[in-house]
Amino acid sequence: MTSTTTIPAAPALPARGEIRPLGQGEVRITGGFWGRRQQVNGSATLSHIEGRLESEGWLPNFDLAAAGKLPEGRRGREFSDSEIYKYLEGLAWEIGRTDDPALEERFRAVVARVAAAQEADGYLNTMFGREGQDPRWANLEWGHELYCLGHLFQAAVARERTRPGADDGLLEIARRAADLVCSVFGPDGIRSICGHAEVELGLAELARLTGEERYLAQAALFVERHGEGSLAEHEWGRSYYQDDMAVRDAEALRGHAVRANYLAAAAVDVAVDSGDDELLAALRRQWDRTVARRTYITGGQGSHHQDEAFGDDWELPPDRAYSETCASIGSIMFTWRLLLTDGDPRYADLIERSLYNVVETSPSADGTAFYYANTLHERVPGAPADPEATSLRASSSLRAPWFEVSCCPPNVARTFASLDAYVATATSDGVRLLQYAPAEVRTRLDDGTPVEFDVETSYPDNGLVRVVVRTDAEFTLGLRVPSWAQGATLRVQSADGVEERDAVPGIAEVRRAFSAGDVVELDLPVAPRISVPDSRIDAVRGCVAVERGPVVLALESVDLAEAGVDDVSRIVLDAAVPPVERDGRVWVRIGVLPEDESAWPYGQATDAASPALFDVPLVAYHEWAERGPSTMRIFLPVM
Amino acid sequence: MTSTTTIPAAPALPARGEIRPLGQGEVRITGGFWGRRQQVNGSATLSHIEGRLESEGWLPNFDLAAAGKLPEGRRGREFSDSEIYKYLEGLAWEIGRTDDPALEERFRAVVARVAAAQEADGYLNTMFGREGQDPRWANLEWGHELYCLGHLFQAAVARERTRPGADDGLLEIARRAADLVCSVFGPDGIRSICGHAEVELGLAELARLTGEERYLAQAALFVERHGEGSLAEHEWGRSYYQDDMAVRDAEALRGHAVRANYLAAAAVDVAVDSGDDELLAALRRQWDRTVARRTYITGGQGSHHQDEAFGDDWELPPDRAYSETCASIGSIMFTWRLLLTDGDPRYADLIERSLYNVVETSPSADGTAFYYANTLHERVPGAPADPEATSLRASSSLRAPWFEVSCCPPNVARTFASLDAYVATATSDGVRLLQYAPAEVRTRLDDGTPVEFDVETSYPDNGLVRVVVRTDAEFTLGLRVPSWAQGATLRVQSADGVEERDAVPGIAEVRRAFSAGDVVELDLPVAPRISVPDSRIDAVRGCVAVERGPVVLALESVDLAEAGVDDVSRIVLDAAVPPVERDGRVWVRIGVLPEDESAWPYGQATDAASPALFDVPLVAYHEWAERGPSTMRIFLPVM
Repeated sequence: MTSTTTIPAAPALPARGEIRPLGQGEVRITGGFWGRRQQVNGSATLSHIEGRLESEGWLPNFDLAAAGKLPEGRRGREFSDSEIYKYLEGLAWEIGRTDDPALEERFRAVVARVAAAQEADGYLNTMFGREGQDPRWANLEWGHELYCLGHLFQAAVARERTRPGADDGLLEIARRAADLVCSVFGPDGIRSICGHAEVELGLAELARLTGEERYLAQAALFVERHGEGSLAEHEWGRSYYQDDMAVRDAEALRGHAVRANYLAAAAVDVAVDSGDDELLAALRRQWDRTVARRTYITGGQGSHHQDEAFGDDWELPPDRAYSETCASIGSIMFTWRLLLTDGDPRYADLIERSLYNVVETSPSADGTAFYYANTLHERVPGAPADPEATSLRASSSLRAPWFEVSCCPPNVARTFASLDAYVATATSDGVRLLQYAPAEVRTRLDDGTPVEFDVETSYPDNGLVRVVVRTDAEFTLGLRVPSWAQGATLRVQSADGVEERDAVPGIAEVRRAFSAGDVVELDLPVAPRISVPDSRIDAVRGCVAVERGPVVLALESVDLAEAGVDDVSRIVLDAAVPPVERDGRVWVRIGVLPEDESAWPYGQATDAASPALFDVPLVAYHEWAERGPSTMRIFLPVM
Repeated sequence: MTSTTTIPAAPALPARGEIRPLGQGEVRITGGFWGRRQQVNGSATLSHIEGRLESEGWLPNFDLAAAGKLPEGRRGREFSDSEIYKYLEGLAWEIGRTDDPALEERFRAVVARVAAAQEADGYLNTMFGREGQDPRWANLEWGHELYCLGHLFQAAVARERTRPGADDGLLEIARRAADLVCSVFGPDGIRSICGHAEVELGLAELARLTGEERYLAQAALFVERHGEGSLAEHEWGRSYYQDDMAVRDAEALRGHAVRANYLAAAAVDVAVDSGDDELLAALRRQWDRTVARRTYITGGQGSHHQDEAFGDDWELPPDRAYSETCASIGSIMFTWRLLLTDGDPRYADLIERSLYNVVETSPSADGTAFYYANTLHERVPGAPADPEATSLRASSSLRAPWFEVSCCPPNVARTFASLDAYVATATSDGVRLLQYAPAEVRTRLDDGTPVEFDVETSYPDNGLVRVVVRTDAEFTLGLRVPSWAQGATLRVQSADGVEERDAVPGIAEVRRAFSAGDVVELDLPVAPRISVPDSRIDAVRGCVAVERGPVVLALESVDLAEAGVDDVSRIVLDAAVPPVERDGRVWVRIGVLPEDESAWPYGQATDAASPALFDVPLVAYHEWAERGPSTMRIFLPVM
């Protein structure tokens, strides 16, 4: 049993503040929706990734480096080293979760190959610095050297938090590389940044783990240097790499959506640990604006394909949504860190939304193929991806096993493997349950109070969340009521009887001297509901979406056979007929507009013929394209 | 006076068919809207372009080549040679139009510098083939060598048609290069194509000019090789350069929108001159589908920024419209060639739309700054462009004087300089007037019948077009009635009296023995009208546009001061109040929605407060952003 004197096995441990996450040892997801995904992730996804890292040559690059054979034979893009580190991080969390000896062996074997490639002064990158390669740090805009190291640091932190003192060498590798970074890029060093934020996150967490102040200072320095224009001007603007203005001056996230979120997450770490409240306030403001105006209903972010970037406010076309999987993972990292600063449950709402509707959408049910970009409207059926091939990132295929730029698969894997650590937080007062899954929670508060309970639920299929207390103790149990859950109720069953009350969105709290066997039930109304977009999101004017609990639903063409059409382009929703649940699916009534082949598509208004009506089922967006090529849309035009 | 035995001074002269364009000598635009633009083009735009070609080093590259000094000092992208050729083509048309001796001198001086750079075997390109440069033809995907030569051929053709036998050397340069192309890429040569179609157009026209069959055969070979997959696979797909399927198999234009239109235009030339009716039918079908489903209301084409490409059917977001200026110029070339095959006035409708709403939108009123991309919805005001700088192509600035990729300015210039040749066509029977401008028309039919008339009009400000016959002759006068012109009337005034009738969209024909002084008046209703987009264009659902005659109107934020808002994001149109004309502008009634700062933009429907109402003027889209930074939208949400 973990006590508060143990460091939680969790990503992101603020050095200050009242709220701490419960780590892997304190929360264990035991089944349900996320338990199934974790099982697939551990049994299929991680080995799929390792297989590709080998066959694509990205892991063998380290062997070539150790053997002094580079650059001949090096394969992969300039950031391929980072995928090995993200894979290691995923393995570390999975080992922490399952204690699997086979994974432990794989982990140590990969670390040994990485270790062998590190140079005497701590430098570690298979792409730069050797004869015949570009020199070190010569291309900060695109070289990704610091980015790769940031992922190395995160892997080392994950490993040390899940297996303290494992002595496999990874932490030492990370420290040596971090020391080099501090010496090369310190106050008297190269006054610049990496074109892709990430090293800041790794350094801040490495500082927390090791207590090494220099690492935090270096992270802060990198954060503050954004906006100095040290990176080259670019066709897409320096906003692409957030080098257009100081982090603390921005009004919203902008530019490349993964870079923007990683940087914002790191900036929260720096602001919290260094007590920079002005910076923290700026980041909260940016989150507010970004969520209010630059985020898809799925939680997805980034509407530009060209620069993988946020668009302007309200620029959220569903058919040209890029909504990169990694951008939502970055958003979760940023959002989680803000949640740890003040506990606002809105942050957990967005995390839940992004998990169910982007991070879960990316992998196939069997965990071995992925979406890199997550469109909200597919107009032309994609082709099945070649299982042997390496796909282009935003290709028009179905989920693909691997990409030339393959950041998403290992990013998904590390997220699912560490998911237990996003379920609950503790304060001196009690525990808050933020994400719902069958789980065991076992922790102690600062004063030693044991908090032990089990969560029983089939959420999100069913909205009932049952907390069964397992030990006698007085504490506050907080349960998140999502903002969509209008009409939720809370019921406390104890020896005193049953007490029931309404639970409004936010945190429903129960403080009492619990006895083992007490039950707290939260009943969340997950019945399907219609969501209307803000009128300023021009691209979906006149449309609505259907959601059920935290899950965004979609209309997929494979469900339209009875309606006699083979794509979703001539469909309108009869919004007067509310969506209903039947046979485990949500059904809506749609009209099918007649074929119309006008030669010019802008003309006089005509009285539309009454469309033929059909009842059709919707599909969870995260399950779309699992039944072969199809067209799909989340936003349905209203009849 | 030109007779039919003279070759018309016009681009695109089919070797077969009933319809021939009237060239510069046969039609002279004498003033009005297009006359003013031609005047600015000749007096300001062409010299602006030459200044930049010098100062950017693109023209001096030829001097370096001649001096054997390349590759050191070469400036500009791999296709910069083509801008010199497009500039020469523009000069040729302008000299044909104005007979300006100063321009004639400039033309000959530039040709001499080009001539000096040509190699002994006819090869001509400043970027490839020398020691220290990549070898010739080694990078067909991106090298643009054949593309550049295509523009050289077009320039030579324009020159020879406007100044037959000018003996300045340009035609000889072109022939030597074309001979080399035929020998290198002929039936037994390199079996591939250029990544950017254009050489096909140049070769087909050069064949028409010179009678050299090999050039047409080579053009046909290049057209047919599209789809063989000889170019490398690409992240955006081989459709990017139309190498994904045979031209005759495609259903619609696809991929890079300039490439697609240039190729389609060349394919029409090849189909017509070689009597390939199957190919011609395929191109007509592609045009229909592209215009019905992949074209903006402005005539603009290409909705993707990333690959400058067409999107899928109905994928026409106004805010992410790329709508490259050159794509519409390509569309005009393709469309004009189809018009010459069967005279369908719908082709002339699209040309008119593209001219007024894309080609005219690109240049500033003074002709020295340009839009490369032509968005239909500006959400954030652009910054004024630095007049000394070279801008990035799809930058967020206002019109810019020059671009790193500067295809659009000389493309605009050559189009305006040759505009007279798009005004009218002749058959054995008579003359059709397709575009309306004050003009003199003087020609002879095949049988020698003189057709001479003047056009008096202030179109498009006013819809009255007055044709005054200047000589006695019997012929058919056809006047295009645009598809939007419901309720047009035609009036014939002669010694017989006045005869008036309705003129439905299409061609209104008057056949009679005209006498000098007879007047035919076409009255086109240019009153503002509301246009409703097809419901499948998702991005503008619930919106309408206002058009007036051929001109698309827009709402610009600089006209919203009285409504108390500084951008166009909270505007709705009161469509119950028809647009009215007052003080030379079109006014609409709009509502201004209240500020609404919800934290999450997808929620329950709320009863909107009644917006405050204001009457505001619209602006011609082609005039937007002439009054400083602003936001703008063409499609207005309906209240």
